[in-house]
Amino acid sequence: MSMGGRKAVVLLSGGLDSATVLAMAEADDFAVYAMSFLYGQRHVVELDCARALAAQSSVIEHREVEIDLSSLGGSTLTTDAAVPKHDSVDELSDEIPSTYVPARNTIFLSYALAWAEVLQATDVFIGVNALDYSGYPDCRPEYIAAFEQMANLATAAGVGGNRLVIHTPLIHLTKAEIIKRGLSLGVDYGKTTSCYDPAPGGVACGHCDSCLLRLKGFSEAGVVDPRPYK
Amino acid sequence: MSMGGRKAVVLLSGGLDSATVLAMAEADDFAVYAMSFLYGQRHVVELDCARALAAQSSVIEHREVEIDLSSLGGSTLTTDAAVPKHDSVDELSDEIPSTYVPARNTIFLSYALAWAEVLQATDVFIGVNALDYSGYPDCRPEYIAAFEQMANLATAAGVGGNRLVIHTPLIHLTKAEIIKRGLSLGVDYGKTTSCYDPAPGGVACGHCDSCLLRLKGFSEAGVVDPRPYK
Repeated sequence: MSMGGRKAVVLLSGGLDSATVLAMAEADDFAVYAMSFLYGQRHVVELDCARALAAQSSVIEHREVEIDLSSLGGSTLTTDAAVPKHDSVDELSDEIPSTYVPARNTIFLSYALAWAEVLQATDVFIGVNALDYSGYPDCRPEYIAAFEQMANLATAAGVGGNRLVIHTPLIHLTKAEIIKRGLSLGVDYGKTTSCYDPAPGGVACGHCDSCLLRLKGFSEAGVVDPRPYK
Repeated sequence: MSMGGRKAVVLLSGGLDSATVLAMAEADDFAVYAMSFLYGQRHVVELDCARALAAQSSVIEHREVEIDLSSLGGSTLTTDAAVPKHDSVDELSDEIPSTYVPARNTIFLSYALAWAEVLQATDVFIGVNALDYSGYPDCRPEYIAAFEQMANLATAAGVGGNRLVIHTPLIHLTKAEIIKRGLSLGVDYGKTTSCYDPAPGGVACGHCDSCLLRLKGFSEAGVVDPRPYK
């Protein structure tokens, strides 16, 4: 938890994955600048979790950015449409689900890119995961590689030779591996939320894609999820 | 000015370039969805111009997105620091100027990408220009190509085979050529603004990089700029 290292911008949603990434960036001795987004998502309990996680870490600064994606529509995460529910993780389809938010990671990474340039940071961390994930296109390695290439042509810093690196330390891990890694770093998963459709107070539904993947991960890791479920 | 064509998202700043691009997209029979940003720029007269341009065109919908880039800092365009002034266009340096806003076009294009996906549009227009321009890295053809490549890996639409195309019809034109093209399409340049540091009421300073490039363009085109200068 040293603060002497190089600066890094860490995208912190308040979920299980980004909480783990935050701990990993700190373990790697980065001086962490955390960035969260209020984007019209129905699960604003995420922001409370992000704040709690940032507060109990050595984050130098936690920036919350309010952006309006819900007015663009296109996702059950940011509208009143129903979030899909299932009884088991085996029911998840291979198709891109309705919870996909158009261009969300691209917008998040673009803000991170801007802040990194202002901070003179050349490292950005994002907790995308291409194994136990919801099938979103903007979580795949080839997408991240293309964003990094674009970013280095976009900025004065990149043109000046300060190459930006997008770190995705979870991308090839299973959810169980992520949880074990985080527990070894002291992550308090009781302060994270994953549910796409939580009840008031933040109680998880237990049946959306994200809950099912999380529960499967804890089960496979042999650990009880400290988060309350309905 | 037909509205029967394919949908396109046009980034409309209210400047000379984007006004011309709007007219070109309409001339190409696209059904235009215009997008403008209030991003903490000191020259909010831009938004008034964007509204006026959209109102007198056949734009289907004009979306104004409020985003907070000024809190990130890093540019004389979004802070109280002085915008550089010069007596002539020959004084412009080859270096990236202080008016550069970190990752601005990347953020703008990311929102356009999101809206395009929701609209099921596969065409985005942006008025970047790599000849008579201020030396911003995110105006170069290699940057735009990299963004397009990233965008097609980012979205469900791209994964589904609906390839997004970023149109940059001005990229290899001189400012004089842009103006002549716009005039042939009926663009009212009196409804556009280019100044980075306008006086109250929108009167242009005549000495910032953008004013000098604009004035040189009108001079070379042999046309009087209808916009008031100090």
